[in-house]
Amino acid sequence: VKIGIVGLGLMGGSLALQIRKIYKQATILGLDHNKSHQKQALEIGIVDQLVDNLNELKDVDILILSIPVDGIISLLHDLGDVSQHTTIIDLGSTKAKIIDAVPKNIRSNFVAAHPMTGTEKSGPTAALDDLYKDKVVVLCNLEDSGKLQQKTAISLFEALGMEIVYMDAAEHDKHAAYISHMPHALSFALANSIISQEDPNAIIALAGGGFRDMSRIAKSSPQMWEDVFRQNSEHLCETIDLLSDELKLCKSYIKEEKWDELNQWMQNANRLHDIL
Amino acid sequence: VKIGIVGLGLMGGSLALQIRKIYKQATILGLDHNKSHQKQALEIGIVDQLVDNLNELKDVDILILSIPVDGIISLLHDLGDVSQHTTIIDLGSTKAKIIDAVPKNIRSNFVAAHPMTGTEKSGPTAALDDLYKDKVVVLCNLEDSGKLQQKTAISLFEALGMEIVYMDAAEHDKHAAYISHMPHALSFALANSIISQEDPNAIIALAGGGFRDMSRIAKSSPQMWEDVFRQNSEHLCETIDLLSDELKLCKSYIKEEKWDELNQWMQNANRLHDIL
Repeated sequence: VKIGIVGLGLMGGSLALQIRKIYKQATILGLDHNKSHQKQALEIGIVDQLVDNLNELKDVDILILSIPVDGIISLLHDLGDVSQHTTIIDLGSTKAKIIDAVPKNIRSNFVAAHPMTGTEKSGPTAALDDLYKDKVVVLCNLEDSGKLQQKTAISLFEALGMEIVYMDAAEHDKHAAYISHMPHALSFALANSIISQEDPNAIIALAGGGFRDMSRIAKSSPQMWEDVFRQNSEHLCETIDLLSDELKLCKSYIKEEKWDELNQWMQNANRLHDIL
Repeated sequence: VKIGIVGLGLMGGSLALQIRKIYKQATILGLDHNKSHQKQALEIGIVDQLVDNLNELKDVDILILSIPVDGIISLLHDLGDVSQHTTIIDLGSTKAKIIDAVPKNIRSNFVAAHPMTGTEKSGPTAALDDLYKDKVVVLCNLEDSGKLQQKTAISLFEALGMEIVYMDAAEHDKHAAYISHMPHALSFALANSIISQEDPNAIIALAGGGFRDMSRIAKSSPQMWEDVFRQNSEHLCETIDLLSDELKLCKSYIKEEKWDELNQWMQNANRLHDIL
């Protein structure tokens, strides 16, 4: 099996490392516009071979697109002449706008996937060989993919040890805003509210586990997240509003000394215990 | 050395477990108004002996107060006749109101401490024998404690492997609002914004590491945090306002399609890399 990966960073690199463990005979071809990332990926053994341009990947069995979501959209326009047997899988964090951008003649080649995993780090050196294992992957509008491509994608994600969830792209984008995009906005906001203080180092010197956990994803790549926020702007703004309303409620309970209501509000949040 | 611990939950229980490893000959006496917690603490080996009331702890060498912060204030009123050699150390998350509540005649007995550690769990069964190691502890207004008590507290926290930071109580309460209390409000708010949706389980089923980390402390005890939010209400409201302003800024960049500004705002948050 011949696998092409465009984007040799955390997501693409980790996928390659795990594919190597599963498909011993896979040949992995890689492409990244960042030349030093290309070099690193080859050195680390993420790819067997580097290619110079997209044309060299148009005949592979599986073509993984693991670049920022705006990049996926531009790249799709150049994939209109991909081989009939190729399965193109994008790993972007948004789905509706990407699916809209797939050229009609290759819609059956295409599978829209969002693996719910990652770290705040980026680049080939951040790649982990167990990033996908036991995690959820959302496949969107799979009925519009060809039978071969459906089967190929499902086999791949099952082999990676992932739990597959099927969802409509619009529903995915709404859910992803709640569970991933808004929490990232929140973490960036938390970091900024402290960094903008007179002596942030004195404050951050007191950081315990709570702050460390909540600010971890504030270290994520602005390049990647700018694209996501742009593509999912409507849902993101709605969820930021809802979160802001909850903060207002919390503050009003404190200001008005409504301690029983505050306690109830915290108890409601505790219900996460039962779900997660 | 004779040590008394009032409050045998996560903080008090973990302290006892670690003290056992350091001071092999310490006798640890415990008191908790929750009778089943008392029983558990004895079974787990957190305490050597349970006592029935505070009077039995007034002659110990070190008296640890590890109960919710309003409870610490009530209890201090009953400690006016503690032995001269006793060092009382409170582990509360707020400091100014607690220090104000210390009876004048035992001010020299008292050391105000805030160990910057914890988990979202509570009760004796949540106790960990390495909760304090390599963490920061803030000691406030230490100049008002007696020489013996200063020395006793410093020795204890050094023996636990903690990094001691000295601070004025008002400054502590402001810093703690930023680095701990507001992030907790934020996590409760995040959990509530999702739990209030029509089908929270479908959303939470997609949770990756980011959401897990950001919502972890939303599982914390409302009883403990209601007290903290009440005692530090002014600083907390200020920091919630600052955080809300950052969220508004983020949303305005998205709404007005100011992508360069959004990217800059994220890059600013990335500066955490260099500090934490």
